[in-house]
Amino acid sequence: MKTINLIGWGNVAYHLFNALNNLNNYKIQSIGVRSLEKIDDFIAPNLLVQIDDLKPADITFIAVLDSAIAEVTEKIPYKNRLVVHTSGTTAIDVLNKKNRKGVFYPLQTFSKNKEVNFKEVPLCLEAENDSDLNELKLLANLLSNNVYQISSDQRKSLHVAAVFVSNFTNHLYTIGNKICIDNNISFNILKPLINETADKIKYLSPIEAQTGPAIRFDSKTIEKHEEFLKNPIFKEIYKLITQSIQQNV
Amino acid sequence: MKTINLIGWGNVAYHLFNALNNLNNYKIQSIGVRSLEKIDDFIAPNLLVQIDDLKPADITFIAVLDSAIAEVTEKIPYKNRLVVHTSGTTAIDVLNKKNRKGVFYPLQTFSKNKEVNFKEVPLCLEAENDSDLNELKLLANLLSNNVYQISSDQRKSLHVAAVFVSNFTNHLYTIGNKICIDNNISFNILKPLINETADKIKYLSPIEAQTGPAIRFDSKTIEKHEEFLKNPIFKEIYKLITQSIQQNV
Repeated sequence: MKTINLIGWGNVAYHLFNALNNLNNYKIQSIGVRSLEKIDDFIAPNLLVQIDDLKPADITFIAVLDSAIAEVTEKIPYKNRLVVHTSGTTAIDVLNKKNRKGVFYPLQTFSKNKEVNFKEVPLCLEAENDSDLNELKLLANLLSNNVYQISSDQRKSLHVAAVFVSNFTNHLYTIGNKICIDNNISFNILKPLINETADKIKYLSPIEAQTGPAIRFDSKTIEKHEEFLKNPIFKEIYKLITQSIQQNV
Repeated sequence: MKTINLIGWGNVAYHLFNALNNLNNYKIQSIGVRSLEKIDDFIAPNLLVQIDDLKPADITFIAVLDSAIAEVTEKIPYKNRLVVHTSGTTAIDVLNKKNRKGVFYPLQTFSKNKEVNFKEVPLCLEAENDSDLNELKLLANLLSNNVYQISSDQRKSLHVAAVFVSNFTNHLYTIGNKICIDNNISFNILKPLINETADKIKYLSPIEAQTGPAIRFDSKTIEKHEEFLKNPIFKEIYKLITQSIQQNV
């Protein structure tokens, strides 16, 4: 039986906890947090400890804000163990050197109130030595069917790409939703379109899948749309992405 | 048996043809095009005629570029029939007044080389009188489970919303794809994320579903990402959408 410590209780930690908790040969020993008082939605209170009180474990997962990773790993009260962070942007060497370093980056958008099928989550792994990498691969393959070995540099670019295709895409959904609300239309009308847009790129490259007034250089429609948009930043986004589509044909 | 004429042979006409062609009580009489020579991918050559040679039909669908709708409907050599356009942006009164006017707007992204389940395509209907509206509803309900009555004004706003959630979203996929290519990463790693981002808003509003460095006001990560992006317009898009996410919390 291998032991696991998990540090943090945000969206990633929450989903990682649920995935790890289902494994037979691994045991979540403790969940480390910086301050016990701040936790109000905790599902396993008996596991909760302050980081300074953590006992050594075979693998320690750090799932905290990127800016806190260095500080948190310094506080870990043991050494020479495998400690991995789960961040897309942070280089492996930000981890404190008293423990063996690794990265276990789940490339997915996590919200606490939305279930995720972890089997489909791409897991991007990195470690300083082969034996730690194999240790992470062994565990990752139990959790997911999509396991990749990714360098710190590749991971950094992957995270930027992920921000575009996920965080920014979701914001475009927010804009669509706002336009619907302002015009008394149910946002549900747009959902099959959103679905098909995501589905399409399983079969076509996004360049081939591009449709709409920008790619048709339909300047009359574009003009009407810009005139329609009263929110200045939405109008600016409309103009800029239209320009980018037309530049990148 | 009702007869149908279809004018145009772009992406919308192609998918509409396939959907209409499967109906029992409707017969596609002809496909009208402006110039027979330009058609190279035609699947039913026996139906092809020039617009001026079209025979009267119970319903005529206009699926041409928005800018050509007025001209095309003027060329139709019959009158007092139901003629509907399929455009998101065009008002119903752009149709030539010699025929009865209607709108049959399929709110979906269509590419010829990607099959679409028409049963899930939202069909937005409008007509000048109740009997024509009922005629369109009858037909629309045979084709799709998502039939809506939508005014010209609502349709216009819906089309702008659709550009954001579909055309612009697809362009964000293109940017993600380019970043992957430039960094020797398979775009496939991002596909589960794209899928989950679209799936999430079936359960959460897009505002609730928002994740990422912008909504966390994680300025260190944002700075690193901006520094990473060398393409000036991609960098500008990054900055603008980040700002919009932070403004619209």
